[in-house]
Amino acid sequence: MASEAAKETANPGSVRPGGRTARVRSAVLRAAGDALAEHGLAGLDLADVARRAEVGRTTVYRRWGNPVALVADLLVEMAEQSLPRTETGTLAGDLRANARLVRRTLADPRQGPLFKAVIAAATCDSRAAAALHRFYETRVDEWAPCARQAVERGELPPGTDAREVIRAVSAPLYYRLLTTAEPLDEAAADRAADAAVAAARAGAFVTTAE
Amino acid sequence: MASEAAKETANPGSVRPGGRTARVRSAVLRAAGDALAEHGLAGLDLADVARRAEVGRTTVYRRWGNPVALVADLLVEMAEQSLPRTETGTLAGDLRANARLVRRTLADPRQGPLFKAVIAAATCDSRAAAALHRFYETRVDEWAPCARQAVERGELPPGTDAREVIRAVSAPLYYRLLTTAEPLDEAAADRAADAAVAAARAGAFVTTAE
Repeated sequence: MASEAAKETANPGSVRPGGRTARVRSAVLRAAGDALAEHGLAGLDLADVARRAEVGRTTVYRRWGNPVALVADLLVEMAEQSLPRTETGTLAGDLRANARLVRRTLADPRQGPLFKAVIAAATCDSRAAAALHRFYETRVDEWAPCARQAVERGELPPGTDAREVIRAVSAPLYYRLLTTAEPLDEAAADRAADAAVAAARAGAFVTTAE
Repeated sequence: MASEAAKETANPGSVRPGGRTARVRSAVLRAAGDALAEHGLAGLDLADVARRAEVGRTTVYRRWGNPVALVADLLVEMAEQSLPRTETGTLAGDLRANARLVRRTLADPRQGPLFKAVIAAATCDSRAAAALHRFYETRVDEWAPCARQAVERGELPPGTDAREVIRAVSAPLYYRLLTTAEPLDEAAADRAADAAVAAARAGAFVTTAE
């Protein structure tokens, strides 16, 4: 269904019912994101989302049913809207680019609270958790080639788990966002990237499985 | 108030009203922890907590007022109940001990869901967030001497931010818990510790500020 919706979105001038369905989904998910960013998960209300999206309440209730289903669908859309990774030619450059992108997202006044809210939703509901896991899998898969290429270039030891390298960049930024009041500044992003590079070079992410 | 309550708890046979207050708090917070572990934040209900704690509903409503205040107080108690750090004589040994302790906590059938729930609460409410930040500050402060001693022993470069070293150990474990469906096994804990050691040795946590 997700890829069907994506196809429809690629056809914005379409007047087919499918095109309308995709536009409704897009408006509703945008409104849900706004509501989550403003009030967090506890303040997500389907009637409020319908009003913000200028869509009939019945449509929203029939299609999503409850706030958690809305969060799960929002995560599907977030995974679809992914941006291509940066290629700088060195692992250190690629991971700094990744860390700064993650930092910008988490420090953004709309995106930061939105990410906190979807993580909170995932702790409450297994469907939201599954959608969140898929979202991060998509993101990690997009950037893992940076680490694989670093292995090919001889920058990292053979057998390095590329996905663990990418996760190592994001982890300190999310941990800082969720457990401290300290600012997510660019220095924190660069430190996260540099720490991941140093650990990867030292072989901390070498697994026998890969 | 927190330290007053701690003093009272140290006197379990006391019949002073203060002693009773501390026992009620202890029973209510235990029940709140159970409820959070079982149903997550969305299922935390004061009447249910009062029933589980075998305490009058009015007492719970008067003293805590709402679920978020209960979560905040639970975090105060969790910070009080802290355990002393392990000293093995090497940074690698100390950080592996720390990582395994964090892993055991997050993989525990009661504690894991409880930590997810308090993190979710912190995304919804600034008082819960402040209590969560203080809890992690306490934990980080307890373990930071490992990294400071490693600097003194010449294992780490001067100017290493000891608290960032400790946070680097926990971050990948929390990130794994919150964003993946992958198991929090001992291998993940050891990898987190080893990565932090390698990054710290390479100077990734050297700051001009410290």
